[in-house]
Amino acid sequence: MGLADKVLEGNVQAAARLITGIEDELPGAIQELDILYPHTGRAHIVGITGAPGIGKSTLVDCLIGVFRKRDMTVGVIAVDPTSPFTGGAILGDRIRMQHYGTDKDVFIRSLATRGWSGGLAKAAISTVHVMDAMGKDVILIETVGTGQGEVEIARVADTCLVVLSPGTGDEIQVIKAGIMEIADIFVINKADKPGAENIAMEIEMMLGMKTCPHPSEADWKPGVVLTEAISGRGAEELVEQISKHREFLVCGGGLERRREERAKQELMGAIESFVRSYFHQEIERGGEMEKLIADFVRRKESPHSAAMKIIRQFTSQFRPVTS
Amino acid sequence: MGLADKVLEGNVQAAARLITGIEDELPGAIQELDILYPHTGRAHIVGITGAPGIGKSTLVDCLIGVFRKRDMTVGVIAVDPTSPFTGGAILGDRIRMQHYGTDKDVFIRSLATRGWSGGLAKAAISTVHVMDAMGKDVILIETVGTGQGEVEIARVADTCLVVLSPGTGDEIQVIKAGIMEIADIFVINKADKPGAENIAMEIEMMLGMKTCPHPSEADWKPGVVLTEAISGRGAEELVEQISKHREFLVCGGGLERRREERAKQELMGAIESFVRSYFHQEIERGGEMEKLIADFVRRKESPHSAAMKIIRQFTSQFRPVTS
Repeated sequence: MGLADKVLEGNVQAAARLITGIEDELPGAIQELDILYPHTGRAHIVGITGAPGIGKSTLVDCLIGVFRKRDMTVGVIAVDPTSPFTGGAILGDRIRMQHYGTDKDVFIRSLATRGWSGGLAKAAISTVHVMDAMGKDVILIETVGTGQGEVEIARVADTCLVVLSPGTGDEIQVIKAGIMEIADIFVINKADKPGAENIAMEIEMMLGMKTCPHPSEADWKPGVVLTEAISGRGAEELVEQISKHREFLVCGGGLERRREERAKQELMGAIESFVRSYFHQEIERGGEMEKLIADFVRRKESPHSAAMKIIRQFTSQFRPVTS
Repeated sequence: MGLADKVLEGNVQAAARLITGIEDELPGAIQELDILYPHTGRAHIVGITGAPGIGKSTLVDCLIGVFRKRDMTVGVIAVDPTSPFTGGAILGDRIRMQHYGTDKDVFIRSLATRGWSGGLAKAAISTVHVMDAMGKDVILIETVGTGQGEVEIARVADTCLVVLSPGTGDEIQVIKAGIMEIADIFVINKADKPGAENIAMEIEMMLGMKTCPHPSEADWKPGVVLTEAISGRGAEELVEQISKHREFLVCGGGLERRREERAKQELMGAIESFVRSYFHQEIERGGEMEKLIADFVRRKESPHSAAMKIIRQFTSQFRPVTS
């Protein structure tokens, strides 16, 4: 029995192995994903983003608890772009496993892919597919929201939570950088701290001014939920809001639209990833391209003209085999 | 007279316009870059990376001052990946302009390209070319080192400074994440704070254990320089270290090797960028691919097989024109 078939039966070890294969970009893993793909599309995907240190992980723990009480199965993907200056996903993962390690209906996985952020986004989406095919009802993607790449990941979720907390000065940045647009629900965590109500009010005010980018989604007004992840306060209400947003998406056609958008992005990612590894190998190998690269290094060719020559060579020689 | 010719004459307005064109990925800007490219390769490129809030910008200001005292012309590129949670490059830029706005031999530019981090790296390298062609002697690239993308940018420099400061707990992260390998010079900024000497000692110890990835560069032992950017202390010594590293690279052949590596990366970037925009347009336009995308959205095609079909179509139809 192949890895994919085991995943479809909900086998955790098989899923874990497949995800590792995806992280390592093994060709076999891509084939297994192809088998899983028709079995995906059922899970509700929730993105959770926010600056470091505002309690996202604790919040995710709370959410797992509430979903489990409702007898829903949960997948969690903690995305850490292996920042050389932060890079802590693995530890959080371990602490969490102490809570839910014995619950077979909770599957937690950290992704800490090195390399380009597009690769990380790709690994995250593929991991969503694996958990989706396993039969998880809800999949939480936690991203450290300090870079564009992470926001892109959050954007592919069905429902996107933007987490803030008092005293960090985030609120202004959020407004400035246009992150308002990606939030379906705002969470003010550490709501016991002074200033929480103020942030909530500011956001409510901003939301009043907000024009919706998708006209047919115009009637969704992002909620603002105050939470204290450490005590669990507000978690039930947050899950209510998430369910409400899902219902809204399903009824209003927004879910279909978001998924089409995500599919297009994923397709671009697959193309880029293929092209990237193909040309990377070509350039590393040298061969026919060696002279061209040498000319380029000696500045006889510009980056643009050298790239065009290489692409021309590629299109005249290469015929990929469809799977 | 074209934009490129004006840049070659050192025209600041022309350079600024060209860089904006690069950020916006205008085709015309790429053509102008092609003209500039043979005139590049003279400047010394210094990368400066480190966590937010450790005084990188102030340090860069100090360095500009020292280089100018030595009658060297300076380009500065401040890279900010438009993080929705930070996103502050523009302000720093303005403050800086108050110091050096009237000095025609200092050209400062912030890059805050939205979108994928590869695009940011590409814009940074292209901006380096512009400043290089303008005749700047030294080009400082300041990156907020919280993501892999920024480290990649730092890595393309001739000389890479990793900046730490006491009390932030960075030192352990730096060692863990393997950032030791990219540092040619360590800078301990805010050296008046307690703990600075300790960090310096720890790094010195680590350096003793370090094995060099490039055998012929093995005899370069990264220096550790203590600075107080706010008072200027240590800036002269740091510039001395930078010059020493440059000399070392030129004499030992390391400069050639680094530039070849950078050229390969740039070539990959140009290929990816072309492929990205080509397929992005194709996917957005729909057309022949529409059915394929629809099948994919309905999960009749896997991402991988759909991508392969699109690439096959591309290679059979497309013949790029060389410039």
